[in-house]
Parts: sequence; C-alpha cells; structure tokens
Amino acid sequence: MSTLIKGGRVVTASDDYIGDILVESGTISLIGASLDTAADKVVDAAGKYVMPGAVDPHTHLEMPFGGTVTCDDFTSGTVSAAFGGTTTLVDFCLQIPGESFAQALENWHEKIDRCKPVIDVGFHIAITDLNKGGTLEDLAKVPAEGVTSYKVFMAYKGAVMVDDETLFQVMRTAAETGALVMVHAENGDAIDILVKDALAAGHTEPIWHARTRPPITEGEATNRAIQLARVAGAPLYVVHVSCKEAIDPVARAREADWDAWGETCPQYLFIDETALEQPNFEGGKYVYTPPPRPKEHQDHLWQALRSDMLSVVSTDHCPFRWQGQKTLGQDDFSKIPNGGVGIENRLHMLHHFGVREGRISLNRMVELVSTAPAKFFGLYPKKGTIAVGADADIVVWDPEKPFTISAQTHHSNSDYTLFEGTEVVGAPEVVLVRGQTIVEYGELVAEPGAGEFVRRAAFGETLTAGQTIEA
Amino acid sequence: MSTLIKGGRVVTASDDYIGDILVESGTISLIGASLDTAADKVVDAAGKYVMPGAVDPHTHLEMPFGGTVTCDDFTSGTVSAAFGGTTTLVDFCLQIPGESFAQALENWHEKIDRCKPVIDVGFHIAITDLNKGGTLEDLAKVPAEGVTSYKVFMAYKGAVMVDDETLFQVMRTAAETGALVMVHAENGDAIDILVKDALAAGHTEPIWHARTRPPITEGEATNRAIQLARVAGAPLYVVHVSCKEAIDPVARAREADWDAWGETCPQYLFIDETALEQPNFEGGKYVYTPPPRPKEHQDHLWQALRSDMLSVVSTDHCPFRWQGQKTLGQDDFSKIPNGGVGIENRLHMLHHFGVREGRISLNRMVELVSTAPAKFFGLYPKKGTIAVGADADIVVWDPEKPFTISAQTHHSNSDYTLFEGTEVVGAPEVVLVRGQTIVEYGELVAEPGAGEFVRRAAFGETLTAGQTIEA
Amino acid sequence: MSTLIKGGRVVTASDDYIGDILVESGTISLIGASLDTAADKVVDAAGKYVMPGAVDPHTHLEMPFGGTVTCDDFTSGTVSAAFGGTTTLVDFCLQIPGESFAQALENWHEKIDRCKPVIDVGFHIAITDLNKGGTLEDLAKVPAEGVTSYKVFMAYKGAVMVDDETLFQVMRTAAETGALVMVHAENGDAIDILVKDALAAGHTEPIWHARTRPPITEGEATNRAIQLARVAGAPLYVVHVSCKEAIDPVARAREADWDAWGETCPQYLFIDETALEQPNFEGGKYVYTPPPRPKEHQDHLWQALRSDMLSVVSTDHCPFRWQGQKTLGQDDFSKIPNGGVGIENRLHMLHHFGVREGRISLNRMVELVSTAPAKFFGLYPKKGTIAVGADADIVVWDPEKPFTISAQTHHSNSDYTLFEGTEVVGAPEVVLVRGQTIVEYGELVAEPGAGEFVRRAAFGETLTAGQTIEA
Amino acid sequence: MSTLIKGGRVVTASDDYIGDILVESGTISLIGASLDTAADKVVDAAGKYVMPGAVDPHTHLEMPFGGTVTCDDFTSGTVSAAFGGTTTLVDFCLQIPGESFAQALENWHEKIDRCKPVIDVGFHIAITDLNKGGTLEDLAKVPAEGVTSYKVFMAYKGAVMVDDETLFQVMRTAAETGALVMVHAENGDAIDILVKDALAAGHTEPIWHARTRPPITEGEATNRAIQLARVAGAPLYVVHVSCKEAIDPVARAREADWDAWGETCPQYLFIDETALEQPNFEGGKYVYTPPPRPKEHQDHLWQALRSDMLSVVSTDHCPFRWQGQKTLGQDDFSKIPNGGVGIENRLHMLHHFGVREGRISLNRMVELVSTAPAKFFGLYPKKGTIAVGADADIVVWDPEKPFTISAQTHHSNSDYTLFEGTEVVGAPEVVLVRGQTIVEYGELVAEPGAGEFVRRAAFGETLTAGQTIEA
Repeated sequence: MSTLIKGGRVVTASDDYIGDILVESGTISLIGASLDTAADKVVDAAGKYVMPGAVDPHTHLEMPFGGTVTCDDFTSGTVSAAFGGTTTLVDFCLQIPGESFAQALENWHEKIDRCKPVIDVGFHIAITDLNKGGTLEDLAKVPAEGVTSYKVFMAYKGAVMVDDETLFQVMRTAAETGALVMVHAENGDAIDILVKDALAAGHTEPIWHARTRPPITEGEATNRAIQLARVAGAPLYVVHVSCKEAIDPVARAREADWDAWGETCPQYLFIDETALEQPNFEGGKYVYTPPPRPKEHQDHLWQALRSDMLSVVSTDHCPFRWQGQKTLGQDDFSKIPNGGVGIENRLHMLHHFGVREGRISLNRMVELVSTAPAKFFGLYPKKGTIAVGADADIVVWDPEKPFTISAQTHHSNSDYTLFEGTEVVGAPEVVLVRGQTIVEYGELVAEPGAGEFVRRAAFGETLTAGQTIEA
Repeated sequence: MSTLIKGGRVVTASDDYIGDILVESGTISLIGASLDTAADKVVDAAGKYVMPGAVDPHTHLEMPFGGTVTCDDFTSGTVSAAFGGTTTLVDFCLQIPGESFAQALENWHEKIDRCKPVIDVGFHIAITDLNKGGTLEDLAKVPAEGVTSYKVFMAYKGAVMVDDETLFQVMRTAAETGALVMVHAENGDAIDILVKDALAAGHTEPIWHARTRPPITEGEATNRAIQLARVAGAPLYVVHVSCKEAIDPVARAREADWDAWGETCPQYLFIDETALEQPNFEGGKYVYTPPPRPKEHQDHLWQALRSDMLSVVSTDHCPFRWQGQKTLGQDDFSKIPNGGVGIENRLHMLHHFGVREGRISLNRMVELVSTAPAKFFGLYPKKGTIAVGADADIVVWDPEKPFTISAQTHHSNSDYTLFEGTEVVGAPEVVLVRGQTIVEYGELVAEPGAGEFVRRAAFGETLTAGQTIEA
Repeated sequence: MSTLIKGGRVVTASDDYIGDILVESGTISLIGASLDTAADKVVDAAGKYVMPGAVDPHTHLEMPFGGTVTCDDFTSGTVSAAFGGTTTLVDFCLQIPGESFAQALENWHEKIDRCKPVIDVGFHIAITDLNKGGTLEDLAKVPAEGVTSYKVFMAYKGAVMVDDETLFQVMRTAAETGALVMVHAENGDAIDILVKDALAAGHTEPIWHARTRPPITEGEATNRAIQLARVAGAPLYVVHVSCKEAIDPVARAREADWDAWGETCPQYLFIDETALEQPNFEGGKYVYTPPPRPKEHQDHLWQALRSDMLSVVSTDHCPFRWQGQKTLGQDDFSKIPNGGVGIENRLHMLHHFGVREGRISLNRMVELVSTAPAKFFGLYPKKGTIAVGADADIVVWDPEKPFTISAQTHHSNSDYTLFEGTEVVGAPEVVLVRGQTIVEYGELVAEPGAGEFVRRAAFGETLTAGQTIEA
Repeated sequence: MSTLIKGGRVVTASDDYIGDILVESGTISLIGASLDTAADKVVDAAGKYVMPGAVDPHTHLEMPFGGTVTCDDFTSGTVSAAFGGTTTLVDFCLQIPGESFAQALENWHEKIDRCKPVIDVGFHIAITDLNKGGTLEDLAKVPAEGVTSYKVFMAYKGAVMVDDETLFQVMRTAAETGALVMVHAENGDAIDILVKDALAAGHTEPIWHARTRPPITEGEATNRAIQLARVAGAPLYVVHVSCKEAIDPVARAREADWDAWGETCPQYLFIDETALEQPNFEGGKYVYTPPPRPKEHQDHLWQALRSDMLSVVSTDHCPFRWQGQKTLGQDDFSKIPNGGVGIENRLHMLHHFGVREGRISLNRMVELVSTAPAKFFGLYPKKGTIAVGADADIVVWDPEKPFTISAQTHHSNSDYTLFEGTEVVGAPEVVLVRGQTIVEYGELVAEPGAGEFVRRAAFGETLTAGQTIEA
C-alpha cells in the first residue's frame, strides 16, 4: 500500500516548503519537489498544510479517579484524537495503591488490547505508592518495557499525592534509568486545608475550586519539583503549567539550562476563571486541575510558548460527562471529578487563535504539538516530523476550512466540550497513522486497532545525540 | 547536471535522519530513504553528515578601514569560506562618508563582479552618514535592491560611528521598509576618552585595546540600541555580542519577546583577553572589536547559545595581515587595524568544541550557522535548510576527520589565523553551492564566479509567515 | 534665644518616641523624656510629630529656561518651601553656555543675596557646556566652594543637553573630586525626532508632550548613565524617576550594590498622563519632564520607595505661571515651558497618601524627604535628623489637621498648583530653621534672610564613615 | 541610681553624633550635647561608640537536642552574650512532642527562674507537633503570654520537622494572632534520603554533613515557606540564611514587598565548607545546620546585608562541647549534635570584618544586630535604639581595642569556639542592661538575675505604626 501526497505545503518545526510525499510500508520513503511515482492512493494537498501528526503526551483514558472513571476509553479517546489531527498519545498508566508497577502496566495493556485504538499509544507510569506494592526496584524495570517516564502527583492529598520523600526517590531512580520525571505540581497539603476551610465556611460552588487552589500553590510546587530534580540529577517535565507563578520557576530553570521543562494546555490559554462562575452548575464543566486562572495569565502563557520557556502544548484530556459525573459535586465542589474534555480540539484552537491571530508561527505550532513532545518522550524521529524514514503519521490540514467546535459533533463520549460553539478556521482533512488513512474528509475510515502500543526510548537518547531512524 | 548524495545523515535545525538527496538544476529535487535514480555524479555520504551550507552574515571583504584595506577580497574570502563549509555570505557594503547609498552599492557590486566569488554573496548597507551624501529617502530605496539590512556603528568615533539621532532615524526608516537594523554596540564616546587617557598615560600595548573597551561599554550600547529600536518599531540584530554585560539586555529583550536578537562569534567563544598580552606584538593579532574578554564570559556565551538568548554564530571575518597591517599599531594600540581572521574555521570550531564536547546539539549548530542566519536575513528557505525546492547548498561533513587549523594551509590572504595550531576532529568533505561542487576532498574545484549576488527578502517575510519556496 | 519643644512624638528615619527638645544657639542641645529647663519660648507639641526639617534637593528658582524664567525666586520659593515643612533646599545653579562655572556660581549667589531666603540654601552646579566657557579643570574646583554635586541633562537637545562625551568627562571628574553626579535621564536625540515628527503631523496639544517622550526613552538614558558612571567610578543620582522602565535599571544597580540611586517626585506618584488631556489647555499645567505617566507606573514607584530601590522624594519645583508662561505653548506643545509647581506640598501629599493610607511608614517618610537627601548631599548630620548637635531645623507637624491644597493659598508665585483642591489631613504647625521660627500656625514669622547659603561636604563623607557633627 | 555616659559617639541605625546620655531608673532620660547633671556614676565614653545593646533573636540555651543538651544554660549563655555586647536574647522554647504549649513555656520559664540571667530574655515558641499535645487553639493563646513568634523546622526528619500541613496551619494561626512565623528552611525529606545514602556508602566524616545538605535543599524550602506564608497571610522570618540559593527567594520577596525577611549568622559570613574537612575530627566543631557553604556564598551574603535583602544578623548559638558531645558522632556524621558556638562574638566579628573592612557601615551594623531584631520581635522602642524613654540597654564600645577570640577566655561553657584565634580590633568596654552595669572593662559586675523575662508585642505593632514608648 502506497500513498502519494501531492503539492502540499510541508511544515515541520523548522521548515516550510512545497513538496510531494510518498508513503510506502508505513513510512515516508520519498520527498520530492514533484513526484510522478505511481501510488495506490493519491491525496491532493494543494493549498493544504502537510504536517507531522500531533503527539499528545497527556491523556487520561478510562482512568478511575474520584470515585468514577473517565468517560473516554481507548476507542472513543483515540477516535476523538484522530479527528483533531493527533496520531500518537501517551496515556497515564495509574498505579492503584497497593499494586505493583507490572500489574499497573498489565491493566493498561488490557485496556488497549480490548479497545483497539485507531492511533498509536504509549504509556507513562504514574507512581502513587512505593510502600504497599510497587518498589523502587520494580520502578527501575519499567523503562525496559518501553515506558520511559515517571509521573507523580504533588496534589490530591489522601488520594494519589506523594510526599517529598517519594518524589525524591522517584527522581533518583529516574536519574539512573533515564526516565523523564513528570510532575503535577501543586502544594496538596496547603490546598487540602484551604478546601476544608472553604467547605466549613459553607462555600460549595465550583468557583471555590479555583479559590482554594491559588496560583502560588502551583508556583511553589513547581519550584520545589525543579529544585529537587536538580539535586537528584533527573530530568523533569512539569505538566499543565497554568499561571505566571508556575512559569517563573520553569523560566529560571530554562535560563540556567537546567534539565527542566514545562507544558501548558489549551484550557489555560483560552479559558479563564470566570468560567467557573457560570450559573446552573455549568461552571462545574470547568473544574479541572490546576483550575482556569484569571485572564491576565493567558498573556504570560503565550509569551512563554514563544520564548520556549514552555515547550509543549498537550491536552490533559481527562473527560467526564457533565450529567452524572460532574454533577456528583453539585453540592460540594470538592466532589466534582477533576478534568476537562479537549483531546480533539488542540490543533483547531492553536491554529486559529495561535497561528492565524499571530501569537505563534506555524513552525512553532508544529513544534509544540508534535516535534517537541516526540523528542521529550522518546518517539522522535519515528514520530514528530516529516522526514524520510519516519513513520508516515501525517496530517493534511486545510487552513481555510471553517469549523465549529461542539459536543454534538465531537467524538468524545463526553456530553460537553470546553470550547462549545467556538468557530475556528482550519481543520484536518486527511489523517494518516503509519500510512493508514484514519480520518478522511470528516469520516472515520480506520480499521479498529489501526493504532499500536509504541515503545519509547529513554529520555535524551533521541533528543540531543543525533540518533537516527535506522539506529 | 545532477548529483546524488547517498546514505548520509541529513541534519537540519530540527531533524536528523538517514537519507539520499538528489540535486537537479541547482536545487534539491528529491529526498528518499533510498534513491536509485541515475545521476551525473554520486557522492557517497555514508557515515557523513549532510547539512545545509553555512551562511555567514558578518564579513568585511576588501573593506577600507583604519587607513588600510582588509586583506581578503571576494576571491580569497569566498574560497576561504567555502573551505569551511560556508556557501553564502552577507558582506557589509560600507558607505564612505559623503557617498550616496546607490554609489556604495555600486562599489560593492563592482568588487564581486571583478572578484568572481565561488559562493553566493549578499550585502548589508552600512550607514555612516546621513547628511553629506546618503539621505533617509535614498536609504528607503535600498531594500528594493535586495539589500534588506541596515548596519550602524555605535563605536569608532571620528570614523564610522553615528550618533543616536542617526541611529534612531535609521531605525525609523527600517520600521517602514522592513529592513533589519544591525548594530555594532559599544559606547564610542566613552571609549574614545578611555583610549585617549590610556595613550596619554603611555599605555600603547595591545592589551590596552581591551582595557579601554570594558564590557560595560558594550552592554550599555546594546541596551540603548534595543530600547531605541523598540521605540522606533524596528527589528534589531546586535552583532558580535562578546560578554555577559551585553547578553543581559539581549536576554531581557528575548524574554519580553521584543524583536531584538544577538549573534556571537568564535573569537569570543574560544579566545580570552590574555591573548592580547602575548609578547613580541603577537597580541596585536587579537585586536578585534569588541575585544576578547576575560575567560568567564565564555560560559555565559555558550549558555546564551543554548537557551536561544543568542541566535546566530557568525565570523565577523575582518582580516588584516599581521606583517604590515597589524604592525601599523606597533607603537600605539589604537592604530592597530581592528579585526580578526576566521571565515574558514567557524564550523571546525563549533563542531569540535560545541557539538563533540557536548555544549550544543548538532541540530543547534546547524541552526546557529545556517538556518537562523538564513531566516534573519531573508534567504530562507532557498538557503538554510535541506528541503526539496531549496538551493542545493550542501555540506557533506566528515565528523571523524582530524584537522589542524593553520595559516599555512588556510585560504585567506592573511598571514595568521586566530586559532593557529588548534586540532579538531570534523571537516567538510564536499561543498556544493546551488548544485555545483565547489570544494571536494580538500580541493577547490569551483569555476570562478560560481557564486552569485543574492537578493534577499525583507525581514520577517520568510521568518514567520510561512512563505514557501515557490512564492 | 532658646526654644523648648515639649511632649511631641519625635520621629527620625529609624526612631519614634515621646520626648522634649531644647534648642539653643541654633542647634539641638538637649533631648529629654521630660525637660523642665527654662526657655525663651515653649512649643507645646503634645499629639504632634516632631520631625527633622525636610530637605528638597531638587528645585529651580529664578532659572532662565525655554525663553522665560521660573516664576519663583529665592524669596517666594523659600517661603513656599517653609510653609510645606522644608527647611533646606538645594537649587540647580545653571551654567549658561559660554559661561565659566565660577560665573555661574556668582550669578546664583547674587540671587540669594538679593532675595534673602528664609530657609537654608545650597547649590548644585549644572554643566551645559565644557568647550566654550567652563572647563573640566574649573569644574574640579567647584566642590571646594561647597557645591559638591554635578548635574547634567541628557535631554533638551539644542538647549542644555550634553552628549555622552561630556557626560562621561563630568563623571570622571566627579570620581576625582568626590562630587555626586546627578542626571536628568532621557534620550534627547530620540525625543527630538519624535517631537519634530509629531509637530510635522499636526499634533500640537499638551498630551503630545507625553507621547513624544515614551517611558523607554527615560529607561534607556537611565541605564546609560548608570553604566557610564560605573565605568567612570563616579557615584550617580538619577533625578525624577517617573516610570517602571527607569526604575528597573536603578533597581539592578541597587541590587548589585553599585553607587547609583534614584529619586522620584510627588507629580509622578499622584498625577497620571490623562492630566495632559484636560481641555482648554488646562493640560498645559502638567507639562513637566519626564511627563506624567500612565497610572500603572504609580504602583511601581511606591513599591520602589518601600524597597529602597528609590531613595529620595524631591519636588523638582520648576514653576511657571499658566497665564503668560505655559500659554507660550498654546499652539505648540514643544513651546510650553517644562516644569511643575510643588515645593510647598511634598509633605502634605506624602503624609496623607503615603503614611496615612499605609503605603509607607512614618519613619520612611522622614527618611525620604529629609535624612536620605541630607546624607546624599553632604548635609548630614547638621541637617536631616533630630539629634543633639544638629541644626535645629525642625517641623512640628499636626497629623490631624485638615488642609486643602490650592493656588489661592499657597506661597508660590505661580497661579496654579498641581494638586489644586486636594484635601489632606496633616500639616506643619511650627517650622524652625537653625532655631529660628519661620512659620508658626500658618503665619510667616521669619526675618528676611533667616536662611543661609550652606556649604555641603563631598559625597560619602557623611554617609558611611560616621563623621560626627563636631568633626 | 543614675549613670551619665559622657562624650561618646552615639550610633543608632540612622544617626551618628557626639553626645552625653543620662540614664535614670533604668531608662534613658536625657541626651545632651554636654550634660553637667550630677549622676551616681559617670562613664567616660570619649573616643568610644555608644550603641544600643545588641539583640540576639536566635539562641538555643539548655535545649535538649540530638540526645544531649546544649551546654550553655541561661546563666553561662547570658553572661557570654553580655560580654559580647548583647543585652537581650530571644530563645527558642521547644515543645517536646506530646507536650502542650503552656507546658513548654512553663519549662522555659523554669529555666530562667533557676538560672538568673544577666541580660533580658524573651521566648519564641517552637512547634514540633500539633496532634499529640499542642493544638492550634492553644497556639493561638501563646502570644498573649508575650511570646509572639512561632518557629517551625522544615528539616530534622523524624525529630522536630513538621510537614507542610502543620507549617501551613501554623502560618494561618499566625495570620490571626499577629505572631511572626520563623522557619528553619531545608527540605528534610530529601536530606534524609541523602544522609542515608551517604552512610550506606560508608561516608561518615563531618564533611558529609555539608555534602548531604546541598544549598538547593535550603533554597527550595526557603521558597516554599515564603510562598505558603504569602497564601496564609502570615509574616515570615527565615532564620540562618546561608547561601545564594536561599537568598534568591528572600530577595524576590523583598523586591515584591511581601512580608518575608531573612537573617544570617557570623558562621556563614566567615566560615566555609572546608572547615568541615579539618583532620582529627576537628571538622566536627563546624557541624551546624545549615552547614558552612563554599566560600563564594559569603560575598552574596554580604551583598544581601548591604542591600537589605537580608535584614538581621543573629548568632544561632546552639553550643555543644567538642569533647563528649560533638564526639558522639565521631563515627557517623549524622550523630554529631548540630550547632555552633557564637553568642559572644557577633559584634567582634561584624565590627572588625564588616565595619572596619568596609563591607557595611557602622549604622548598618547597629541596625542588623539591634534595631532590626528589636523591631521584628516586638521589642522596639524599648530595645534597639538610643532614645529618651528607651530601656538603657547600652554598649560603650571601644573601636580601637585589640581582642583575640578564644575558648580559653570566652564565657560559654563550650570547650571550643568557631573563631578560635581570630584577632580583631574593637570590643565592648561597658555594657548596661536597663541601666545596670553588667560588664565593665572586662569584668562581670552584674547581680545574678539582673536580666528579666521580656514580654514582646505582636509583630508589626511597633514596626510600622509609630507606637511610642509610652503607649
């Protein structure tokens, strides 16, 4: 099976040129100014962007959390991702306290075996406990399974939060195994007290989710994680940076050339704290963590994306239905399952409001959603660029197509979306994963199970050393 | 004429993969995992890097200065450049006070017409006077000649230095014409007094070149240029940043996302102030401006290159012979023609001490010497990358080849080099300019005049807007 | 003649206690918890603050400027100052181009001889020209006249502005003579072009005074002065810092412990740019330089005063009448004489809006208006504190007295005031200069000529070395 | 009993003048240029400094710690302090886990009742546990006992360390009660792991005390405390700042005008990490926490003291004998009781190496050791200055007296001192506490029990509001 993509504007993290691309056996075999090779299928990409498929390194599919389970599994989740131009995701495999890491991985493999994803899938391991099941020794073996990143939560006290001892031990293990440490950075101890106090004072509405998690609590934990990782000698990736207070320590680390980086997500670039105040519990839709912030933080986030103080835009797709799930917290904001819906719209939003409105360049968008996450998470150069030898994970993007975001048309199982009604210009036209057409002109055409589990290289192996595809 | 470069490791600013490259009619027509196309010539690049030809945006060839003329013309200068892997340079066309800008350009065109360069050549216009010849109106017409950058000197009082009025007027014109303003940033007024005082005190040795140009005088002027450019609305490029004091204001601008950037040069990364103290007037070889700095500045420069606070490495090749030229200042450091010899060794030094010793990645080296200068100076995507449609300006680089830098073997007319005797590993094997082989296995094989004058696009047209090769 | 001030709350830069003060022979001879000494006069200060008389280091009395002369001489100016609690001022003795410094000093001595000031008066020398009259050699002799500070203007091109050469030479002379260099920091070259352009575009209204002097032009010059002073080895005092862009370089200097400091003035703390837009040319009243800034700068100024990034609050009293003087620029903002009216209201404003509203402490107010300027300008410990041996320059301040600022009641000759109609709480009740009562319960009771010319010590002699009053 | 101190140079935080001081009934009743009042005792202070007695807000007397007890009680400790010019100390009353705060205070009152201190003594309460004895409700009552500061340890895991929950709760309580929160800032979790690892690797020597407590672990915790205090709304005082990494977050807080400050101690200004490497377990003498740092940190500390980024110099006197106490850890650095000996030499060291060598001014020394701690800890204006109405806590200091620091002559019970053999110029001649002569010309002349427990005002009551002595 071969595919020829003709006449598109090929856009990578640093390049932008008109060319034809030939895909054979799942990889890109030829790039030419004008190819007349015969192919099983020809895609006319004239006037379109031909970009590497997006990589989403932050999703929570079919994850038990807060007494319920996220409402997308690896079927609906990967279909939704594909419709948004994402061709690989890396999901958090969550250790249930008491469970070994091997068991946790087995659970997650079962999910993808059962759900037959349509895009490629990798895992991070999320450590919640080192005493009752998993051990540091076991953790050290996880990277050999192609799972080369360790996630820890500094918040959610009494649930998945770890203390500094566990955090630091995980970091020291990572320093030895080449894993990248990922942190959810908020001071869970302080937040726990603020939440209890707010509830004691009778504050139950969704806005109190934000009021009990002030930006400083995120900034503090971000700094703490960065400093401890420096002592441990581990590389660090701070997830979902939402505010200036958290950008600042990441920026100090970047300027000092420490091995610490940060990502943000569309829900911080486009939604502000006032969303939580929507009446009739509509505000509950925006209860994700960190919470949406006052609007002035958005400018800081864009600035950080431009100056590479923040390096990736992921989705932190952690979907719950409003009816029946979010409403669990109708009378107590602390009982609202935390998470937002967004796996499908990352490129829609970034392309329209980022690129078209001049906040970032087209190259930078590709870097933020594809090349950089592929490099951070050991997927590059198979993923994350358009180059011969690379997996043919390709998005043909129509930069002029009007599109309206809506839960009525999205492919997540959630009954709402964070950007309902937003009108953008620009949408995917054809999406390929390893040469297979997954989405085409708005239709899902993938075979179930078109996606595969993807083993990832250790941190840094592909980032700096010039390791080649063949290697 | 077609050329097939087989099996090399293709390295761009963001990518790194094994592939074959077919060159036809001067441009890259095909990139494949494995091409079996017939070609007039085949280059075996197995085990080699295949990189975009380097762009040197800062040279002074056959330039009258300090009562003499730089000792490389566009013949020797471009041959020397080619031997170092540079395939395009942008030279400073210097307005002689009293001369119109049109006349200055005509003078410089005459030089390249006469000298038959072997690599491509563009011009910046250097404004020294707005009152006696050139006018702002004339200056506004220069970009239409393909010369889209304005250079001003804030130092060399009594010679080429301009005052803030001229500087600011040039910036305001640039804001209208889309030209990029380049500044040599040193406070010439203060330096002039320091020099006079030093001479009055009987200090005549080369080291006093550095002592009368303290880092603060560079830092101050750098900040001034950045601030004034911000008021004027002009993009700014600070040449030859040499010290922490000058990095700081550039870094503040980068962090604030202002349109201001900086370059540095190998002579600041590798040579320190003590070189000026070499006996027997050997120190005179290192009299360039800004002067070499105390060694601790070098770490700051590398750090700035890594964090993109500095964006380009150029050479500021401004060659004089030691015998007969540098010696003009044997009894008075202020009479030593200012400038260093380096057009041929930029990649040698950066590859060995930067990439091999782990200070920067290979991708970053390509970005610093090729992609970034091509983008800043309106050459991209014809120059600065390996992509179909781009000019076939290609360096096949042998990363394992031992090489010793020496004036005895270099191709500059100068009788010395800044890095005499330095042993490196890594050197160009084959250098192509628009598909023509210029240097091959250590031999010059170019036709005289293989290089052409290259018209450059206005600043930013190719940098952010995604303009394509065809456009 | 002796005076006993009983029962007041004595407030210095660091202390605050209840005590009685005995004044004899013009100095403070005794401080006691409760004095029963007989005295010629007793002031009941119960419930009042007893503070050192304020020192105003920035006034322009009877100064020719912009084709006219400031409307307060040393009579009205010092009376107005006294009514505001100021007991010493240091005025700018302005060298007329072509004039020697000795001549300039003579001119200024003539003014005070003629005008019989009621408070003590010192001079700074303002250098406008080093080529046609004053020389560096002459300048070096000025401190011996008790005039130990050199002022230069980096703005007002074509009038009093000096270039960097003159600026740097003055600084180097100061480094030798122990004088403190004071700069008016704005980039006059850039401003001159912006003004011409604005006028050419038909913009003549007062608001264009601000629009042609953007904050960056002040920030740039501030940084330049600080850097050059550092190279020269001279201490530097930046006058009338008005905006964040200028605070930043001062703050960097403070943090690095460089010998550079800054002052601000009430007109920057309390008036914003919109004042210039008042109709019917009322905006012309607010044409002073730097101009009032957008309101957000005020918070930065207060913050800088609190953290000692700014060290003094002076008035920059440079008074013109609205009718007949300001109106010279009715049709051309660039012809409006630059300056504001404020010598009388510095403490009124700072006490009410600073101390009472919690922005600064009472000690800090005393430091900002009295102790710090006395130390910077070689007046301490004779001036600037309440201590035995010090000059009995004392303000008995009623912290609860309501007071309305108005040109109808102030003592300046100007027909308007910057703070017309502002209602404050707190005003001076009794003001002593070297033991003589100058103002008492709202009446001027001074003998004409009660004030004297005051010779000032060199910079730093009294600031750090612990020089005592007797020494 | 009255005392007249004649002819000295009176030095306060802001003033410096020659004057006579009359002390009556324990307070300063009169300050005069020249007093001829009769007095019971006359001290000739000609040529001497007359300074407010120093306040040491950081001592650990007779404190159980690490399985032993500090070797100075309130007898030897206060005598030693007095010989160094300290007239008030504030000691840490340490809650034994399980104990109520009332009980802890009772224990500490018993110590001073028994020991009869010769200088005034206040307490901080150190919270080690909120669950088994002390409660937040009880803690809220402590300030009413005149104990208005809460101390928590973020290090010493398994001993006195608290987690963030306790830290934050203490801060919130402080926000309500007006107490000042004091933190020992080090990340105890990370250090605990580093220590265990070092011991497991066979590293037992004293130098590993420093190697297992890298500066980042202090910097991190310092930032964390500052951020959490900001969220809680509590004022914060960071004790014993030892390194640049910890100065940085304090400096950011100061610049932002947050209510957070820091102190340092002589052992960080004068001793560096290499001291721990002294042979024959001599290095064990320098095991205090944080540990001495690499020498380059000392410049940062001095700079921070000058720019008021650090606000106080205390001693953290926590004395152990070398023989028998320090030697407990001869085979295991983690068993060495942590603490240093220094209560007697703070002014000796600061005066000689700070003031005489030009690092700080004399006024600043007085501020750092007396005025600032008195203001921070609710002792001002009774303590901390020379003013009428203030307690007559006075040091007559001979600035020219040679003095050699030695354990053979000091008054601590310890058998060593941190500065053994250091020769300084400058020492106390006469020390008064509330008018009583305690030390005179090298002899202890105090009555036992001359010192009293001193109740302290809540934070800020005396700092900013201008509360007077009578109030």
